[in-house]
Amino acid sequence: MKFQKIASPIGLLLCVASIAMLLPALVDLAQRNSDSAIFLASALLTGGLGGVLFLGYRGEYSPWNRREGFVFVAASWFAMSFAGALPFVVSKVDMSLADAFFESVSGLTTTGSTVMSGLDQQAPGILLWRALLQWIGGVGIVVFSVFLFPFLKLSGQQLFALESSDTAERAFSRFEEYALRILAMYGLLTLGCTLTYNALGMSFFDAICHAMTTVSSGGYSTSDLSMAKFHSVPILWASTFFMFLAGAPFLVIMMVLSGRRRLFDVQIVWMLWIVAIAVVFIVVAMRLDQETVDFSRFSSIVFTVVSIMTTTGFGYEDYGLWPQAALAVIFLLTLLGGCSGSTAGGFKVSRLMVLIAICGQALRRMLYPNAVRSLKYGSSTVDSENVLDLTAFTALFLMTLAISTLALTLTGNDLQTALTASVTAVSNVGPGMGPIVGPVGNFASLGDADKIILSLGMLLGRLEVMSLVIFFLPRFWVD
Amino acid sequence: MKFQKIASPIGLLLCVASIAMLLPALVDLAQRNSDSAIFLASALLTGGLGGVLFLGYRGEYSPWNRREGFVFVAASWFAMSFAGALPFVVSKVDMSLADAFFESVSGLTTTGSTVMSGLDQQAPGILLWRALLQWIGGVGIVVFSVFLFPFLKLSGQQLFALESSDTAERAFSRFEEYALRILAMYGLLTLGCTLTYNALGMSFFDAICHAMTTVSSGGYSTSDLSMAKFHSVPILWASTFFMFLAGAPFLVIMMVLSGRRRLFDVQIVWMLWIVAIAVVFIVVAMRLDQETVDFSRFSSIVFTVVSIMTTTGFGYEDYGLWPQAALAVIFLLTLLGGCSGSTAGGFKVSRLMVLIAICGQALRRMLYPNAVRSLKYGSSTVDSENVLDLTAFTALFLMTLAISTLALTLTGNDLQTALTASVTAVSNVGPGMGPIVGPVGNFASLGDADKIILSLGMLLGRLEVMSLVIFFLPRFWVD
Repeated sequence: MKFQKIASPIGLLLCVASIAMLLPALVDLAQRNSDSAIFLASALLTGGLGGVLFLGYRGEYSPWNRREGFVFVAASWFAMSFAGALPFVVSKVDMSLADAFFESVSGLTTTGSTVMSGLDQQAPGILLWRALLQWIGGVGIVVFSVFLFPFLKLSGQQLFALESSDTAERAFSRFEEYALRILAMYGLLTLGCTLTYNALGMSFFDAICHAMTTVSSGGYSTSDLSMAKFHSVPILWASTFFMFLAGAPFLVIMMVLSGRRRLFDVQIVWMLWIVAIAVVFIVVAMRLDQETVDFSRFSSIVFTVVSIMTTTGFGYEDYGLWPQAALAVIFLLTLLGGCSGSTAGGFKVSRLMVLIAICGQALRRMLYPNAVRSLKYGSSTVDSENVLDLTAFTALFLMTLAISTLALTLTGNDLQTALTASVTAVSNVGPGMGPIVGPVGNFASLGDADKIILSLGMLLGRLEVMSLVIFFLPRFWVD
Repeated sequence: MKFQKIASPIGLLLCVASIAMLLPALVDLAQRNSDSAIFLASALLTGGLGGVLFLGYRGEYSPWNRREGFVFVAASWFAMSFAGALPFVVSKVDMSLADAFFESVSGLTTTGSTVMSGLDQQAPGILLWRALLQWIGGVGIVVFSVFLFPFLKLSGQQLFALESSDTAERAFSRFEEYALRILAMYGLLTLGCTLTYNALGMSFFDAICHAMTTVSSGGYSTSDLSMAKFHSVPILWASTFFMFLAGAPFLVIMMVLSGRRRLFDVQIVWMLWIVAIAVVFIVVAMRLDQETVDFSRFSSIVFTVVSIMTTTGFGYEDYGLWPQAALAVIFLLTLLGGCSGSTAGGFKVSRLMVLIAICGQALRRMLYPNAVRSLKYGSSTVDSENVLDLTAFTALFLMTLAISTLALTLTGNDLQTALTASVTAVSNVGPGMGPIVGPVGNFASLGDADKIILSLGMLLGRLEVMSLVIFFLPRFWVD
């Protein structure tokens, strides 16, 4: 276990953060806002530290073993989270350390829960910084899930990573080429989303900020009203479309956009079905409640379902006022999340698919104990190790939720707040339920301990739980 | 698939129900209560039908195939549920069909949720009948889980069924001898509990009714106040002791009582630890809330934890008023339940143990992908089929909860009521949370549809979910 070996790439990531900080610095400079200097100073500090690490340990870059891989995964997200928190502490928003860390983690993990209010009156620099954190976090998790998680055999990710034969080991050896292509496609998607939002009436600044938090399924907005600021059904549908793409496996979207395949990937088809069923269910629940469902209300339902399921978390209506059956669906969608290999969080559609296949297999085996039939996920065979990994992931995911809920009730929160805040954090969605963490609430009123607990929950969820839980294995630290 | 083959044992079960109905008939006769005739008529009807089935199809009793086994499991519980509902419909309590079915299912599945109020003013016959339903349901599920579930390879039950070498196939061939021994031990336990309750101040009638619902982890009481009627800390501790035994694997208790082994079975040790941790957690939560915890309060906490975890559901204090952290623990204990092979319901301690072992295995394999180390549960090896079964059970258990919650919100219940009623039903506990289904609430105010949904939930939970879900497999009905 050589920490020096991971220092250089961590330094490189900090340099990326430093360069990103220059953008808000420029925007604030153009508006003659004094935060400009803060961003510049943060950039210099982060870039200086990053540069020293990158150049100082450059020679140490040699193949990692698994331990080093896991330490890199954890260290990179924590380092970026601290760097991301820097501007929040020193700029005009003047946050406490816990608030700044929470806001930064919520950004990088593309969760989108916020402790800030009065967003509409904030300087553009800090708003852009929040959007950039999500944008970087989004592409970061795609790159990790394409290259690093399969290499680490993290919670069965090798099963879901890539479907084509053009995979894992080969992809890793051609890291730079692939990473650049992913980055280019991610940029293109962001550009398309920006232009669409702009064409539909958003200001260019709002358009680019919301585009960055749409394609990353993040959900930070430039307004306390979130998407309701724009009062526009076309914007809702445009946002729904791009959120859906962001919740789909990124490599599939990449191949579709470059014309190499059609959109009907098995995970995407399931996601479409789940969205359709959830929408129908909510419409039925509203009709049973004697509410009228016109086109604008229907658009809002579709938008909300896709926003929650893709773990984006943009708000439009206060769905806390919807029928209880709608809330039950939204809670389940919060748990489920989008597709693996996407920027979305949560349990993931792919895992649900394998779980259902496992149920079918187990039921059939109760009838025909000697029948041999292999389990399939798409064209891959699900072997017993995959089942073990999936089971462990499911158990650890649920235990994380249970422990986080217990911890949050112990600090004095009510059960609804504790449970839904935990689920929304671990699934990287954003809003929970109830007056505090619900869609019109704000996480600011939670205590510092709560913010730390939820920040850890967001990181655990983002990094597929097991990559952080492994540090609790005593054997990780010996021999 | 020959339905005739299962008709005879179903008839035998109905005869058992018929004989049981004679007891309330006698009690009511002694009190000159007119329900006496009702119970006698019900006994004749049930016994007549049972007798015809038993004698008419006696010759058809030959070895079952798996399909016939599953049909028997379902048919036996439904038949007994209908028979059990009969006295509720025609006696003075004069219930609707849905209420009577709910009360009967809640009894036989040892859940203990009730739609009756004013219990203290009811005739003794109907109170005894409720206790008898739980007592019969309790010994019924022990017999099923010892003989039938392992034979059907139901959701991995063969792993948990028996630890000794003296098992499954052999036990099945010596069914009568084993069943009689189980029945004798169950009767002895009930007698011990009755005498203890009686010695500590309960009337003999209250003692025998509560003993029957204690050793079956059922939780029906003869009073609306449940255990609070007796205002006695010694009774709380006696009840805690017997509930704990009821939540432990029955065969282990049997061997301990007959002096053939010590109590420290691996599941029992885990259950003790979980109880201890839960109690400490609740005490800490109360102290953080500035509440004083004296011995009487401490006794009440231990009693409540054991009552919920063993899925008995006796009430003492309104724990709805406890700190939110205590409610979170109670919710988790409701989900978990007691040991497999006991009268308790829920997910089961044994499954939690295997899940945790799976997590450890999966984490270790991320570090050492090529290390081979077999998974153990006690002295048995957990193979990949066991893992598959456990995963399927876990998924179906959670899906049952999700579907039941969605259905209950759709009929107009709030999310808390829908979720906690579903969990308490599927885990066969009894009380949920909130004003309606909470510890001081009553299920009577729910709609008929809700009562049917919850009755099905109770039966699904009681029969290990998969034994009923298998009927949804199209292939069950072909070839």
